[in-house]
Amino acid sequence: MSNNKGKKLVIAYSGGLDTSYCAVSLSKEYDVHAVSVNTGGFSDKEIKNIESNAYKMGVSTYKNIDAVATFYNKVVKYLIFGNVLKNSTYPLSVSAERIIQAIEIIEYAKSINAAYIAHGSTGAGNDQVRFDMIFQTLAPNIKIITPIRDQKLTRQEEIEYLKSEGIDMPWEKSKYSVNKGLWGTSVGGVETLKSEKPLPSEAYPSQLEKTGEEKVTITFKNGEFVALNGEENKPEINIENLNEIASKYAIGRDIHVGDTIVGTKGRVGFEAAAALITVKAHHLLEKHTLTKWQLQHKEYLSSFYGMHLHEGQYLDPVMRDTEAFLQSSQKMVSGNVVVTLKPYHFSLDGIISNHDLMSSAFSTYGEENKAWTADDAKGFIKILGNQNKIYQQVNK
Amino acid sequence: MSNNKGKKLVIAYSGGLDTSYCAVSLSKEYDVHAVSVNTGGFSDKEIKNIESNAYKMGVSTYKNIDAVATFYNKVVKYLIFGNVLKNSTYPLSVSAERIIQAIEIIEYAKSINAAYIAHGSTGAGNDQVRFDMIFQTLAPNIKIITPIRDQKLTRQEEIEYLKSEGIDMPWEKSKYSVNKGLWGTSVGGVETLKSEKPLPSEAYPSQLEKTGEEKVTITFKNGEFVALNGEENKPEINIENLNEIASKYAIGRDIHVGDTIVGTKGRVGFEAAAALITVKAHHLLEKHTLTKWQLQHKEYLSSFYGMHLHEGQYLDPVMRDTEAFLQSSQKMVSGNVVVTLKPYHFSLDGIISNHDLMSSAFSTYGEENKAWTADDAKGFIKILGNQNKIYQQVNK
Amino acid sequence: MSNNKGKKLVIAYSGGLDTSYCAVSLSKEYDVHAVSVNTGGFSDKEIKNIESNAYKMGVSTYKNIDAVATFYNKVVKYLIFGNVLKNSTYPLSVSAERIIQAIEIIEYAKSINAAYIAHGSTGAGNDQVRFDMIFQTLAPNIKIITPIRDQKLTRQEEIEYLKSEGIDMPWEKSKYSVNKGLWGTSVGGVETLKSEKPLPSEAYPSQLEKTGEEKVTITFKNGEFVALNGEENKPEINIENLNEIASKYAIGRDIHVGDTIVGTKGRVGFEAAAALITVKAHHLLEKHTLTKWQLQHKEYLSSFYGMHLHEGQYLDPVMRDTEAFLQSSQKMVSGNVVVTLKPYHFSLDGIISNHDLMSSAFSTYGEENKAWTADDAKGFIKILGNQNKIYQQVNK
Amino acid sequence: MSNNKGKKLVIAYSGGLDTSYCAVSLSKEYDVHAVSVNTGGFSDKEIKNIESNAYKMGVSTYKNIDAVATFYNKVVKYLIFGNVLKNSTYPLSVSAERIIQAIEIIEYAKSINAAYIAHGSTGAGNDQVRFDMIFQTLAPNIKIITPIRDQKLTRQEEIEYLKSEGIDMPWEKSKYSVNKGLWGTSVGGVETLKSEKPLPSEAYPSQLEKTGEEKVTITFKNGEFVALNGEENKPEINIENLNEIASKYAIGRDIHVGDTIVGTKGRVGFEAAAALITVKAHHLLEKHTLTKWQLQHKEYLSSFYGMHLHEGQYLDPVMRDTEAFLQSSQKMVSGNVVVTLKPYHFSLDGIISNHDLMSSAFSTYGEENKAWTADDAKGFIKILGNQNKIYQQVNK
Repeated sequence: MSNNKGKKLVIAYSGGLDTSYCAVSLSKEYDVHAVSVNTGGFSDKEIKNIESNAYKMGVSTYKNIDAVATFYNKVVKYLIFGNVLKNSTYPLSVSAERIIQAIEIIEYAKSINAAYIAHGSTGAGNDQVRFDMIFQTLAPNIKIITPIRDQKLTRQEEIEYLKSEGIDMPWEKSKYSVNKGLWGTSVGGVETLKSEKPLPSEAYPSQLEKTGEEKVTITFKNGEFVALNGEENKPEINIENLNEIASKYAIGRDIHVGDTIVGTKGRVGFEAAAALITVKAHHLLEKHTLTKWQLQHKEYLSSFYGMHLHEGQYLDPVMRDTEAFLQSSQKMVSGNVVVTLKPYHFSLDGIISNHDLMSSAFSTYGEENKAWTADDAKGFIKILGNQNKIYQQVNK
Repeated sequence: MSNNKGKKLVIAYSGGLDTSYCAVSLSKEYDVHAVSVNTGGFSDKEIKNIESNAYKMGVSTYKNIDAVATFYNKVVKYLIFGNVLKNSTYPLSVSAERIIQAIEIIEYAKSINAAYIAHGSTGAGNDQVRFDMIFQTLAPNIKIITPIRDQKLTRQEEIEYLKSEGIDMPWEKSKYSVNKGLWGTSVGGVETLKSEKPLPSEAYPSQLEKTGEEKVTITFKNGEFVALNGEENKPEINIENLNEIASKYAIGRDIHVGDTIVGTKGRVGFEAAAALITVKAHHLLEKHTLTKWQLQHKEYLSSFYGMHLHEGQYLDPVMRDTEAFLQSSQKMVSGNVVVTLKPYHFSLDGIISNHDLMSSAFSTYGEENKAWTADDAKGFIKILGNQNKIYQQVNK
Repeated sequence: MSNNKGKKLVIAYSGGLDTSYCAVSLSKEYDVHAVSVNTGGFSDKEIKNIESNAYKMGVSTYKNIDAVATFYNKVVKYLIFGNVLKNSTYPLSVSAERIIQAIEIIEYAKSINAAYIAHGSTGAGNDQVRFDMIFQTLAPNIKIITPIRDQKLTRQEEIEYLKSEGIDMPWEKSKYSVNKGLWGTSVGGVETLKSEKPLPSEAYPSQLEKTGEEKVTITFKNGEFVALNGEENKPEINIENLNEIASKYAIGRDIHVGDTIVGTKGRVGFEAAAALITVKAHHLLEKHTLTKWQLQHKEYLSSFYGMHLHEGQYLDPVMRDTEAFLQSSQKMVSGNVVVTLKPYHFSLDGIISNHDLMSSAFSTYGEENKAWTADDAKGFIKILGNQNKIYQQVNK
Repeated sequence: MSNNKGKKLVIAYSGGLDTSYCAVSLSKEYDVHAVSVNTGGFSDKEIKNIESNAYKMGVSTYKNIDAVATFYNKVVKYLIFGNVLKNSTYPLSVSAERIIQAIEIIEYAKSINAAYIAHGSTGAGNDQVRFDMIFQTLAPNIKIITPIRDQKLTRQEEIEYLKSEGIDMPWEKSKYSVNKGLWGTSVGGVETLKSEKPLPSEAYPSQLEKTGEEKVTITFKNGEFVALNGEENKPEINIENLNEIASKYAIGRDIHVGDTIVGTKGRVGFEAAAALITVKAHHLLEKHTLTKWQLQHKEYLSSFYGMHLHEGQYLDPVMRDTEAFLQSSQKMVSGNVVVTLKPYHFSLDGIISNHDLMSSAFSTYGEENKAWTADDAKGFIKILGNQNKIYQQVNK
């Protein structure tokens, strides 16, 4: 018996093959405490299943942490404020979740005085970076253990090992690996390992159940999604409800191609109906209520906010500074946005807001002008063009 | 008779009521030369019609300038390189055209030694700024005449005037004002004067003619759209052909809400199937072939390129500098993108490129790593996290 | 007699020839209330002089508004947080003052129910834009009167007019026009009208009084200048005191070349010892206490904050959003900075801060490494270089 | 004897203790070829010394590569175009050199078919990253050997080893470590290991030799420094000559505090008279000849150009794209700048350029306006203020 026995190890446990292998093998050396963090993907039944599996693997305790509200308040809220779509496409569904999961797990590990923390990520991707960085920063004295990254076993080897330990479960690998959360579901498969092909329709979790069209009304208050079809609720609940409605139209499928933190290119399918609709509706409301320069500078900051979040730099204080900017910018972002859902896509009808700057009291675009004269306009243009006129004449 | 008679005036002539009114009334004082600039919107028949109308209004000469290739080479090319969609939505269809039209008209005016130049824009919108600024900058000695802006007549008053001059034509105002060009068609109507409602389907120029799906292959070479479905042609021809194919699916409808140059908010519908498909396909190819920092800095520059273009600052030398950056960035943006057209929307299948950085020789994302070890990854993450670790420990 | 008599007009009064001309001529038509706003430039004696002059011009009332603390809290504080030096040179001394002066004056006009507001700016420069924009935005119903801009009189004509009205004062134009405030003194002269020559030493308000060197200690708390040489005081007082000490070394002279709001280039000399020392000392403290990305994104936002402020866009809500970012970024910017004053220049000795990230517990730069191994470093670099390696091999 | 003997190893050799230790110990296993790269720091005599030392250490060959012109053309030129001063202070003297040295060395290694390449950097700092990244990217098959990083010997241990190998030289550690190059000299010492103290005057390579003042004229053509005091020469020669003149005034001392690539903060003294004067003079000329938006966007790009260069990402293609932007921006940056040198500092007198946009034909700033009327200005301001006016009225 190892002299580590008695020292507590917390493992981020998903119930899958990799973390089950870890749980079993680490239990030989450590006092293993399994924890899963629900950021919107798990039903109660699924959590029960994970718990049951965990104990089969011999862990001392299992705990599920419900972090949906935390996830919304710490990250999703700002992704909406910033209309963040990485590379104009991806709502950062999984990237954002990992951060909150890592924080919750390490805080749990600290709370039970664990000396070790384990995760099941490989050495190839982003998640190892997010987990390790958050763990090391928030608890530099807790040692990180990563059997999957270190041992590089095949699935078959892991299954054999578990069998040899008396655990004989059907670990069939599903054709598509799916990761579900409040802010979207990622989908990986043989197609996303290369660049050429889309995912087939059946790879996506939601299939078309409704045809025709359906209108939904999204109410924002200071940038937060406070009501769906007039019914007020917490934003995270509204997002879940919207997702349920929109998923029946199979809305929100796409493939993200992006840079991993380790410098490679990665490709991942996703379905994120509520995330895409919410971001687009919010952005439309902002176009009506923010000034040109608010929109412009938000674009710069939000793009970097997304990059830093994606790269696991959530704890950098620049993220808090950016959140302060974003929060301030939402002061007038209140109103209703009507969205029409259709099979596989959606469109934005328009908005109603007390803060709408498209005020007909001033000027109806292109039609007439009430607030200034033709001479004002001529003076404006003459002076607006000054620098280029001077430039041309000096340099002709 | 005015002593301006004999002095040449060039008028930007569209054949519509406003510029017809201008042509007739200005012909009383000036030697009027009408000119229209085709940036992709006019058929030969339409040009014949404009010509015929022009002469009815009493102009001395009429000339149509074919500027489709110029439009592509001077502006559209860079909008594609930059993946420019204003406020994440609008391909700047009309904004971009006006710039080239203004340049072509003022160059024509200079070539015939005109002393005056007229346009039919009002004092409320963007076009007056674009026309005036380009005219003043490139020909500070040619005086700008703007009867519509100055006189603010109603349609009825213009029609009465034309009747009194013996011109009795059916000037019925169509329910939707439509402006067609290579890079898209704008659509204005009663709905776009306010914020709440979308345009009805029938307001859009293209209606659904095909159901089902259709795949098209777009070939880029150094960022330029050099072939459609394997058939090589000039990019502007490929764009027109793609638009014809995609319009049968009624793809590319949306509404742009943005800031006018005069500080108001404006709303305009548009249909831009080829523009949207081309930009999205090009952007996808870039995600595979450019580095992270190329993508990031292109985003900043392209956003401002769009803003400056929209605001009529095309002649600012910063636009040439930005074009140099964008041109340089396209060195490896070559390959095929397959797009699936569907009713009202489209999706991107994937890409094939010799310059694809998603190289399986290095790492298959999330699966395994060939180019580095677990220890390399640990060292990478440890040092990548250094600053935040130090920050937390210094400031805890 | 005009029927405006009885209607109140507020005039921004400086005591100089231009505003004296305005005060006298406007008093014939309006009930004129003169107001001056002290943003740090005036001594009590000077204010008494302005008051005495004002009444000589026939105004109904005169009021001086002390806005030094307001100026600091609303603008200067954020210029320090942002290390704002326009074009890497100019602390925006005058630009910043004008904004606060305009706000104070229009608020005063509203408080006394004035129907008119007058300023003495010409039509050529920046100040007219700042005054008009702030006035129109905060009080769209108060009409702006600008005799100097409208009438374009020569100095001689103004003097003749005043004489004809019985006011015979020595209005000799000083060789250099000087504008003094908390955040610096601007100096204009015949040299700054062209590009070639510097201002002569005697044009600057402060002359070298001390030789040798002198150390001063600046204490920042959350980015604010809370103590000078250990003596705590309000930041605006500390700035004034520092300026007095540093001016004896004739520190802080330079010439700013920049873009006016009306599109021309302008050149203005300035002396701003306290502003330059404070900004440079604050920036040094930030280099020790902020993360790389805080420094980088602050640079973007601060540069635009300076541009918008310079251009009179202080009331745009994006300025409040930016201030929220800047305020958030100052959480750890506390500590002492020692500066050595020398004849005509200064240097920064170093800093002491509890939040200094240059922690020797982690790594002494270039000497040894305690927090990671050689292998960690190799892994870090290997992966950090991944993308460029892939790029080179794919594209060679 | 190792089976590596016969396999070629190239070592970046400086003649100092660390690389001498490497040369001796590696010669036991490899066929060692020493190379030094002169980027402006070495005199012929110094090179002779290095060569003599190299052979004493038992290397097979020694070669010095003169890379001054390469250094200028590949890097320094763009640092001038971009007015790059890291954190508003540091011309990136050493960072920039390392890149070119690494490229030259790896190209040399490839040219002689070396299988190994060695450098003497530790594992704590920036240089290891720059060397490794460039080496790996340009020659992934050449193995990198880093004895200093791996073995972490003390100076005394290295000296003992060399003695034991019969090499007994005076390796006294100078109090300040100095690194000289075309673009500046870095200075490290006991003071720069902590945050509080400046370097003493005697630590800097140049001491005050002249008092009084001296004017120099710097001529730029398309942004390049083509003549000094009217004498035309290659830019790199002009920089060296300017440095010689200005060093007599002990100009250009400062301390840089910045973020290392490995996440720590570092502090380094430097003396860079020519670099600082050239950058400031060039920037002034740009303020007169570039448009507002050229200056603004150059600021963004140049700041990131400096960051990426500092971090060893010189081979990222975004650097070439940025150079294309910068090159384009220099089209009109031609003219003379007069600088006054004084003890320990300098000031800029002014500029003369055919491309100066401060054209008195248009407007003399703040005095009068020839190109527009008071009414034009009023119209301009009215419309420029539209958005904020609308915002205030909608949201009051």
